[in-house]
Amino acid sequence: MMSLTVSGGISRSRLISRSPSFCLRNVSLVRALFQTSVRISAPLRSYCGTPGQHSSVYRPRRALLFVAGNDERKIRKVPSLDVDCVVMDCEDAVAPSKKDEARTTVRRMLDEVDFGRTECAVRINSVDSGLANDDLSAILQAKKLPSAILLPKVESVEEMQTFAANLNTAVAGIDYNPTFDLLAILESAKGLMNLQPILQETISLSNMSPFRLAALVFGSEDFAADIGASRTSDATELLYARQKVVLAAKAFGLQAIDYASVDFKDTENLKRQAEEGARFGFTGKVAIHPLQVPIVQQAFSPSPERVVWARGLIQAFQQHQQEGKGSFEYEGKVIYKPGLLQAQHILQLAQSSEL
Amino acid sequence: MMSLTVSGGISRSRLISRSPSFCLRNVSLVRALFQTSVRISAPLRSYCGTPGQHSSVYRPRRALLFVAGNDERKIRKVPSLDVDCVVMDCEDAVAPSKKDEARTTVRRMLDEVDFGRTECAVRINSVDSGLANDDLSAILQAKKLPSAILLPKVESVEEMQTFAANLNTAVAGIDYNPTFDLLAILESAKGLMNLQPILQETISLSNMSPFRLAALVFGSEDFAADIGASRTSDATELLYARQKVVLAAKAFGLQAIDYASVDFKDTENLKRQAEEGARFGFTGKVAIHPLQVPIVQQAFSPSPERVVWARGLIQAFQQHQQEGKGSFEYEGKVIYKPGLLQAQHILQLAQSSEL
Amino acid sequence: MMSLTVSGGISRSRLISRSPSFCLRNVSLVRALFQTSVRISAPLRSYCGTPGQHSSVYRPRRALLFVAGNDERKIRKVPSLDVDCVVMDCEDAVAPSKKDEARTTVRRMLDEVDFGRTECAVRINSVDSGLANDDLSAILQAKKLPSAILLPKVESVEEMQTFAANLNTAVAGIDYNPTFDLLAILESAKGLMNLQPILQETISLSNMSPFRLAALVFGSEDFAADIGASRTSDATELLYARQKVVLAAKAFGLQAIDYASVDFKDTENLKRQAEEGARFGFTGKVAIHPLQVPIVQQAFSPSPERVVWARGLIQAFQQHQQEGKGSFEYEGKVIYKPGLLQAQHILQLAQSSEL
Repeated sequence: MMSLTVSGGISRSRLISRSPSFCLRNVSLVRALFQTSVRISAPLRSYCGTPGQHSSVYRPRRALLFVAGNDERKIRKVPSLDVDCVVMDCEDAVAPSKKDEARTTVRRMLDEVDFGRTECAVRINSVDSGLANDDLSAILQAKKLPSAILLPKVESVEEMQTFAANLNTAVAGIDYNPTFDLLAILESAKGLMNLQPILQETISLSNMSPFRLAALVFGSEDFAADIGASRTSDATELLYARQKVVLAAKAFGLQAIDYASVDFKDTENLKRQAEEGARFGFTGKVAIHPLQVPIVQQAFSPSPERVVWARGLIQAFQQHQQEGKGSFEYEGKVIYKPGLLQAQHILQLAQSSEL
Repeated sequence: MMSLTVSGGISRSRLISRSPSFCLRNVSLVRALFQTSVRISAPLRSYCGTPGQHSSVYRPRRALLFVAGNDERKIRKVPSLDVDCVVMDCEDAVAPSKKDEARTTVRRMLDEVDFGRTECAVRINSVDSGLANDDLSAILQAKKLPSAILLPKVESVEEMQTFAANLNTAVAGIDYNPTFDLLAILESAKGLMNLQPILQETISLSNMSPFRLAALVFGSEDFAADIGASRTSDATELLYARQKVVLAAKAFGLQAIDYASVDFKDTENLKRQAEEGARFGFTGKVAIHPLQVPIVQQAFSPSPERVVWARGLIQAFQQHQQEGKGSFEYEGKVIYKPGLLQAQHILQLAQSSEL
Repeated sequence: MMSLTVSGGISRSRLISRSPSFCLRNVSLVRALFQTSVRISAPLRSYCGTPGQHSSVYRPRRALLFVAGNDERKIRKVPSLDVDCVVMDCEDAVAPSKKDEARTTVRRMLDEVDFGRTECAVRINSVDSGLANDDLSAILQAKKLPSAILLPKVESVEEMQTFAANLNTAVAGIDYNPTFDLLAILESAKGLMNLQPILQETISLSNMSPFRLAALVFGSEDFAADIGASRTSDATELLYARQKVVLAAKAFGLQAIDYASVDFKDTENLKRQAEEGARFGFTGKVAIHPLQVPIVQQAFSPSPERVVWARGLIQAFQQHQQEGKGSFEYEGKVIYKPGLLQAQHILQLAQSSEL
């Protein structure tokens, strides 16, 4: 991990006030300074879940368990579920009349509940709904911030610009410099069609707004409804869209998260679908019931043989690095950077599932 | 339905002659004026088939029955077939030496035959063939115009520009302001590759030429020949292309029409393929024989349960609209605009199949 | 075939020295002159394999047999294998410490071995590896040049620009004007994502550098590793990517070459996979063992019935051409240019397999 040290804290307002366009021209400097200043003075607020979750370390998200943001009882159960990530939902799981209640509850849960190893994420409403800004303003009042934000119904470059601007406003009052992992949910024909320009713009925007695009989530049910497809258990009707999402995610170095199997009682089917998702290159899957969590996390965990293979590869890499070599042979194959990254990913997943 | 009233008819030539660039700068105004002028003075010519077919009402096209444009006997049988749409073909079904005969026959059939509830469409030759302009000029001499035009072998933005210009010329002598639904046939690697820019340009051109892009038709046999694929009955070789066509169609709000099953005697296979097409999100399918029509139309009709669901959803929507709410809950799900559009589509299909 | 005649040889250096930007402004003239000068004076160097292989004649590549560039024993066996194309590999099959040995061996093999009907190709290292330029400089010292170059890990427009510049430098010392078929290997999410702009730029670059983009090769194993997919024998996890490669290849008039089946002892599986590739529109497949060659070449050869069909179509076309007709009917179908090209392709394949 990169580690800068600065001899004193600088207030954000002072830095930015130097020049009207300073923020834009010196974004990375400003962000580097603020990231270090977190280490210097004890932050007044922090992230919920595992400490340091907001860093650039790879964070496995095999299962993302969705819970309605206004369902305090269910949220308080999460720490006992050993799930990689909980998503407190302000969107589809919350009726329009309950939005405010959900925002208040989510904020309170972030501060009150010790989620242990579980990452805390929040799904806000879509930009198009007109509710996203209120969601951000309300929830980012929490003392312990979520480490990830899920943005649903992503369809256009303009939406992402609005989101980035909203997020900038929402963090303006925070006295340290938080960064959020952004998980973009793709669930419409338009979103899938515009995927490449959306991702390029989003990554570009992340230089000027405190988020890092971390994952694409494929919303199969909404997508099927949008294109007028009928869902089947083998999901042939979604093949093009799912594989396009995986391809785009990997081309931009992102996680790819498959959507929920809606019939949560059919565990056989869930296992089959989760394993297929893993074979396709998805790195995780949405869960909508605690019973789905262990099945999903198992399907997205590497096998013991795979872990041994990855460990050996990384050892070989480190050895060859010391000898000044770029690529090298391992178990009869020449290994390049992608092989190394894959091995690191496997080990990170394995370490996460040992927790 | 939007309904404008204007106090008098304005001749098109007068309006356009005001300024050289008037047409471009005020296209929507011009079109709005002409659309209303149709309502004011009795048109000298009209559309064949159901009155009002050219309006912006959703028009189901579950089966599109192709008939050779020079086969008068077969065309005269169409009204007895209860088919959503007949396509009188001037392209592949007509030998090069018979093109003029086909144009004359199609024009005469449009004027002479009462097609009842069946929509009349014409497939002209591709822009690339050099025959499209003659097709349009000849056929649009009919007193009862076709409500839809199918343009085959769409491959490039430039072709669409030529088509739009040709259509403008062909309608110049018509004394009211017709608008045609355009059904673009995609049947080559190049067309599929350029799909997004083609659609963007076509929709933009429809502001300056009297057509509305209504559907994409996938030409499976020609596409397979173009990419050198061998057709199989499960059509795995076409999966990417078919799902890309559905995705693009839905992203631009268009119908998606699957192509013909060529072995028209194998009704079992036809049923299977039509039902798969419907599951994938296609809204209709080309038929090449009257025997295919009822099977195809059945496959693309919603089930009775689905109709009940859609009717309930629309009622709930209207109720919530009156209460000033955007999204709402229906049968345990929050309903957004896509859900509403899907329900409307289902009801429209159901109403059409009751006819 | 185009055939220009020029009254005398012109040295390349003289032509280029006229003006600094002459080369760029008059590229096609320069190339036309050099191409003709080949015909005038006996070339000091030539291509290995069948004479005239570098011309624009269609060259079937049903099987591409990969052999490590430093494995002289295996390379010397190639002429006995009746394979369409041998690829002497300087990349993954060669350990980093053996790169120089491979370059020297490949150059020597090109000059020493009579490959008979087998085309000689070389896979250089990727542009990103930093080794591509040294590969080209060393190998293009051969007196008998390879007719094709395979470039692996193609991911960006910039890489192709570097490749074209490297190739220009590498051929600068050659006293006639060779042209190479370029086979671009796509094997990453990024490469697949950027496929269209890469192809457009590559074709544009081929006007200024002595290569012709001839084929896309899909690298399934590396691609699967890159997106984190697990390979299965039915390869559903690769469907989107494989069909996207076929589509792009055909849209740009290129061959599409499927990658190796890695378990080379499982001939049943190989046959099944090769036949599926042919059905999908691939025109050939990589082989990694001599035993794979006949199975692969059989799968990508047209059936006798197909050859009869193609021969008849081409005869009919020639007849109609003399009568001044563009399209025509053949066996009940109107035949356009794609049908003709497909028939020519089939006959070329058939003629090649008769050799």
